Amino acid sequence: MATQKQTITLLISCPDQPGIVAAVSNFIFEHAGNILESDQHSTNQEECTFFMRVNFAEEGFLLPAGELEQAFRPIAERFRMQWSISYSRQRKRVGIFVSKLDHCLTDLLWRWKSGELAMDIPFIISNHQALEALAHMYAIPYYYFPIARERRIHDEQRMLDFIAGKVDFLILARYMQILEPLFVDAFPHQIINIHHSFLPAFIGAKPYQRAFERGVKLIGATAHYVTNNLDEGPIIAQDVIHCNHRDTVPDLMRKGLDVERRVLAEAVRMHTEDRVLIYENKTIVFE
Amino acid sequence: MATQKQTITLLISCPDQPGIVAAVSNFIFEHAGNILESDQHSTNQEECTFFMRVNFAEEGFLLPAGELEQAFRPIAERFRMQWSISYSRQRKRVGIFVSKLDHCLTDLLWRWKSGELAMDIPFIISNHQALEALAHMYAIPYYYFPIARERRIHDEQRMLDFIAGKVDFLILARYMQILEPLFVDAFPHQIINIHHSFLPAFIGAKPYQRAFERGVKLIGATAHYVTNNLDEGPIIAQDVIHCNHRDTVPDLMRKGLDVERRVLAEAVRMHTEDRVLIYENKTIVFE
Amino acid sequence: MATQKQTITLLISCPDQPGIVAAVSNFIFEHAGNILESDQHSTNQEECTFFMRVNFAEEGFLLPAGELEQAFRPIAERFRMQWSISYSRQRKRVGIFVSKLDHCLTDLLWRWKSGELAMDIPFIISNHQALEALAHMYAIPYYYFPIARERRIHDEQRMLDFIAGKVDFLILARYMQILEPLFVDAFPHQIINIHHSFLPAFIGAKPYQRAFERGVKLIGATAHYVTNNLDEGPIIAQDVIHCNHRDTVPDLMRKGLDVERRVLAEAVRMHTEDRVLIYENKTIVFE
Amino acid sequence: MATQKQTITLLISCPDQPGIVAAVSNFIFEHAGNILESDQHSTNQEECTFFMRVNFAEEGFLLPAGELEQAFRPIAERFRMQWSISYSRQRKRVGIFVSKLDHCLTDLLWRWKSGELAMDIPFIISNHQALEALAHMYAIPYYYFPIARERRIHDEQRMLDFIAGKVDFLILARYMQILEPLFVDAFPHQIINIHHSFLPAFIGAKPYQRAFERGVKLIGATAHYVTNNLDEGPIIAQDVIHCNHRDTVPDLMRKGLDVERRVLAEAVRMHTEDRVLIYENKTIVFE
Repeated sequence: MATQKQTITLLISCPDQPGIVAAVSNFIFEHAGNILESDQHSTNQEECTFFMRVNFAEEGFLLPAGELEQAFRPIAERFRMQWSISYSRQRKRVGIFVSKLDHCLTDLLWRWKSGELAMDIPFIISNHQALEALAHMYAIPYYYFPIARERRIHDEQRMLDFIAGKVDFLILARYMQILEPLFVDAFPHQIINIHHSFLPAFIGAKPYQRAFERGVKLIGATAHYVTNNLDEGPIIAQDVIHCNHRDTVPDLMRKGLDVERRVLAEAVRMHTEDRVLIYENKTIVFE
Repeated sequence: MATQKQTITLLISCPDQPGIVAAVSNFIFEHAGNILESDQHSTNQEECTFFMRVNFAEEGFLLPAGELEQAFRPIAERFRMQWSISYSRQRKRVGIFVSKLDHCLTDLLWRWKSGELAMDIPFIISNHQALEALAHMYAIPYYYFPIARERRIHDEQRMLDFIAGKVDFLILARYMQILEPLFVDAFPHQIINIHHSFLPAFIGAKPYQRAFERGVKLIGATAHYVTNNLDEGPIIAQDVIHCNHRDTVPDLMRKGLDVERRVLAEAVRMHTEDRVLIYENKTIVFE
Repeated sequence: MATQKQTITLLISCPDQPGIVAAVSNFIFEHAGNILESDQHSTNQEECTFFMRVNFAEEGFLLPAGELEQAFRPIAERFRMQWSISYSRQRKRVGIFVSKLDHCLTDLLWRWKSGELAMDIPFIISNHQALEALAHMYAIPYYYFPIARERRIHDEQRMLDFIAGKVDFLILARYMQILEPLFVDAFPHQIINIHHSFLPAFIGAKPYQRAFERGVKLIGATAHYVTNNLDEGPIIAQDVIHCNHRDTVPDLMRKGLDVERRVLAEAVRMHTEDRVLIYENKTIVFE
Repeated sequence: MATQKQTITLLISCPDQPGIVAAVSNFIFEHAGNILESDQHSTNQEECTFFMRVNFAEEGFLLPAGELEQAFRPIAERFRMQWSISYSRQRKRVGIFVSKLDHCLTDLLWRWKSGELAMDIPFIISNHQALEALAHMYAIPYYYFPIARERRIHDEQRMLDFIAGKVDFLILARYMQILEPLFVDAFPHQIINIHHSFLPAFIGAKPYQRAFERGVKLIGATAHYVTNNLDEGPIIAQDVIHCNHRDTVPDLMRKGLDVERRVLAEAVRMHTEDRVLIYENKTIVFE
C-alpha cells in the first residue's frame, strides 16, 4: 500500500540502451509529475532488455488521462517500448473462479474487504454451488457455470461471452477445471493460478499422498500466470512451509492450504498494483 | 545439544502393537536408567510400523555396555525389533568427502570445532587437492584420491579399502563424483549427501541457469541418505531461500551455497545424535 | 490433525524421577490402550520437573471414562503428579472475544469450519456490534457486552456470569479491553491472547508508528496465556514477517495482521489438542 | 552480485521535489553512462526526503574519476543533496574487530574469500589473541590491542591512531568492548555491529538465560550502525530462528550464533555494495 493519494503507474519493457530513464523522468518532470516510486531492471545479457515501473502522483500532473498516452507515444516509439499506463482511481476489475475449496476465496475476500487488495470484484464464477453463501456475505454476485467434460469448449465459450468486457483479469482460486486455449488466449497473462509445489516435484495424481510417501520436509505453493502449457506459466510468487514425519496426508493438505492462500494473495496484490512485468517465460516483480 | 552428561540412545523400529513403550520403559527403569528424552511415532496405517528413540543417562544405569545388548535382546525379539544402541561417549567417526567447493566443508568444520557436531573426523578425502589447507587448519588428515572415469570402480575400491574400519558414516560435502553401487552398498544409509532443489525441479545440466531462466522465486537444498537411486534416497532435511528477478545466476548460486551448508549441517547433527530412523524410502527425524 | 479415530490424552507434570514413563505406559498397556503419540520433557535442572503427554486410542481401551480417573489416581499420587485427562470426542468449548478488528476472527472461523480446529464455539462476545454478520455467517451466537470504563468490574462480572459453565477456554481474538483480575482468575491459563511483537520492543502507544520510525526489519506476533501481568503470560507461539523501508505504517499494520492471525491459530490448535503444558511462566508445547 | 564489470554508484539524499530523477538520469545519460540499477525512495511525509541510488557502468562513461565530482556538483547544489560517489574498482577497506567468539569472523572470511563480499581487509584487531590462527589462514594481519578498563580511552585512542587512514569502515564481529564516543565519532555510521535480539527484549546480563526462563519461541539478531546510544543505532538487517522447550541455554546460544553470522553478513554485503542510506535513526536499504 503506497499513500492513499491517486497515482499513475507506467510499465515499460524495451531493448536496453542509454537514455531511457532520463527520457521517461524528463517527460514526467516536464508535466509536473512527482515520482513516488521508480524501479528498473535490465537483463544485462547480450540482447539486453530493460524494464521500468514508474509510479507518480496524479495530483498536479498536467496531462489529463486522454492526453497522456498521446504525449508519451513519441518516447515509446523512439525506444521501441511495450508499455501500459494505469490510474489508481480506476481499480482493476477481477473475476474470481472457484470450485469447492474455499480457503483461497475466504482469504482473498477478507483481504479485499480490509483494503489490502485494491480491486473490484464484479462476480465470482463457479462450476459448483458450494461457495455461494460466502460470496453473498461479501455481497458479490455468484454465478454457477457447470462444465461438462464432453462439451467443455462450448461451456467455456459461454463463460467467455458472459465475462466479456466485465473484467481486467481473472483469479483461479482453486478452480479445478482445465481452461481451453480459446479461454486462455482471451486473457493473455491476465489469469492468475495457484497450485501446490513439492521438492521434488510429483507429477500426476494424488501429489500429497506421494509427498507423504516420499517423506518431504517442505510443502510449497506457486502462483503463476496461466498459459497453454499447464502449470508452466511465468511464476509470480512462491513460498513453502515446513513439515515432518508426524504430518499425515491431511496435515500436509492443511499446510498446503495455508501456504496456497498466502502465496495467491501475494501474487494478486503484486498484479493489482501493476508491479509485475513479463519477460520470456518469467516475471519481473517490482515489490 | 542435550546435556553434557554421557547418555545412551536406543533406536527401535518394529511392527506396532500395544506394550512396546511399556516394555522398553520398564526395562530401562528396572536397571535404574533415567530417561532424558523419549520420542515415538507410529505410521498409523494398516500394517503399522512403530518407531522409538529413547535417550537415557549412562550414569547410574546398572548394565555395563557389554551386557546391555544381551539383556535387551529378549524384548527385541518379542517385538521383532530392528534396533541399535549407541553411547554418547563413543563419538561417531565420520569421513568427509569433498571436491573443490569449500562452503560445506568450512561450515561443517567450524560447527564441529565449536562443539555443535559431536563426532570425530579421522580424515577428509578429495579427488582434488584444493581444500588441503582448510583441513590442515583444523588438523585433520587430508587424502587425495583421484578418480579416473575409465577406472572408477577400481579407484572407488581403493578408497573403500582405505576407509575400512575407520568410520561409522560418511558425508559428501559437495563431492562431485558418482558413487558406484559397490561403494554405496558398503555404507547403507550411512552416507549423507546434499544437493540443490528447485520448484519446479530441473533435471540435468546447469540447473541454476535453468532456474534463472524459469524465474523461480525460491532456491532450495535437500540433504538425504545416498542410495543407488541417484538423489532419490530418504530425505533428512530441506530448506529454501527466497530470490527474485534481480538475482543473477551467480547470485542464485551464492544463495544456493548458503542454504546447502545450513541444510547439510542440520542433517549431520540429526544423524550424529541418532535422531534419524528410516522407513521405506523416508525418514523419521526425532528433532 | 491426528487420525480421526477417538483418542484419550493424558497430560502430566511432576517432579522427575525414574520410572514415570514405565508406570504410565504399563498402566495404559494393562488396560489394552494403544499409544499413538507420546512426548515427554524434563527440565534437566537441579529440581527437575518432568512433563508428559500421552495420546492413545479410545477404541479397545478397557476403562470407561468414569473409571479411568479413579484407576489412574494411585499412580498420580505416587509420583505427585498434576494431571488431566481429555477425550477427543468431548470437543473443547471455546468462547471468542472480539472488538472491531476482524482478521483473527475470520481466520479462526474459517479454520474451525474447515476442520482444522477441533472445538465447539457456543458464542462470540464483543464490546462492539461490528462483527455480528461474520458470526452469523457461521451460525454462531453473537452477544454484545459493552464495557464502560468506570464500571469495568461490574461489566466483566456480568460477562463472567453469562459465560459460567458454557466454555472450557477463551480466545481474545483482538479484544481491546483489559481484563480485570476477577476475570483472569476465573480462567487460569485458559485465556489465549495475541499481540504484536517488535525487535526491539516498543512499549506504550502507537507501536507501529514507533516501529516505523525505528526502521525495524521484522514485525512479529506473540500468542500467550493471559495472566494478571499484562502481556507477560506464558508464550505459546511466536512468528515474524520481514519488512523494509518501503513499508508505510499501514503496510506494517497489514503485515502485523497477517502474522497475528497465523500465530493465534497455531496457539489455539496446540491448546485444543492438549499439547500445551505450563511450567513456571513458560510453556512446553508438544507439537 | 551485479555484473562483474566495473561500475560507479551514486548515493543521494535530499529534500524531495520534482525533477531530481530527471536531472540525475540526464546527467548520466549526457556523459554516456549506462544505468544498471536505479532505486529511489521518498518518505512521503510532510517534509519529504528523497533517497536515490544509481549504479551505472564505468566503461564508456565519459567523465574520468577526477572530473565526475566537479561536473555533478551543480546538480547536487541545486537540489541541496547529501551525496557520495563510489567506484567498484576501489574496493572498500574494512577493519574487523573481534574478541574470542569466532562464528562471525569465520563466516565473514569465508564469504569474503568466496567473492561474496567485495572488500579488502587490511587487518583484524582483537583484545584477545584467540583468533590469530584463523586470520593467518586467510593471510590477514592480526593485531592484538588489549583494553584495560581503567584506561579505555587511552587504549582506544591507540587503536584509532593505528587505524587512521587504513580503512573505510569497521565491523564489530562480536567485539565485546564498549566503544567510547571518541572512537564512534571518528567513524560516523561506518561501524557495523551485531547483537542478539529477543521477543520480548531482555536488557542486561545473561539474556539467553532469561530468554530460556521466559520460554521464547524465537531467537533473533540485529545488525546496526554503531552510535553513541548503545545498540540503538540504525538497523540494517534482522532475522530470527525458531526454538522450543527442548532447547537448552546452550542450544539457544548455538541458534543465536547461526542467526547472528547470517544477519551480520547480510548487513556487510549491503554496506559494501553502497546499498544503505541513513535517515534520522533508520536505514533505507536498496536490496
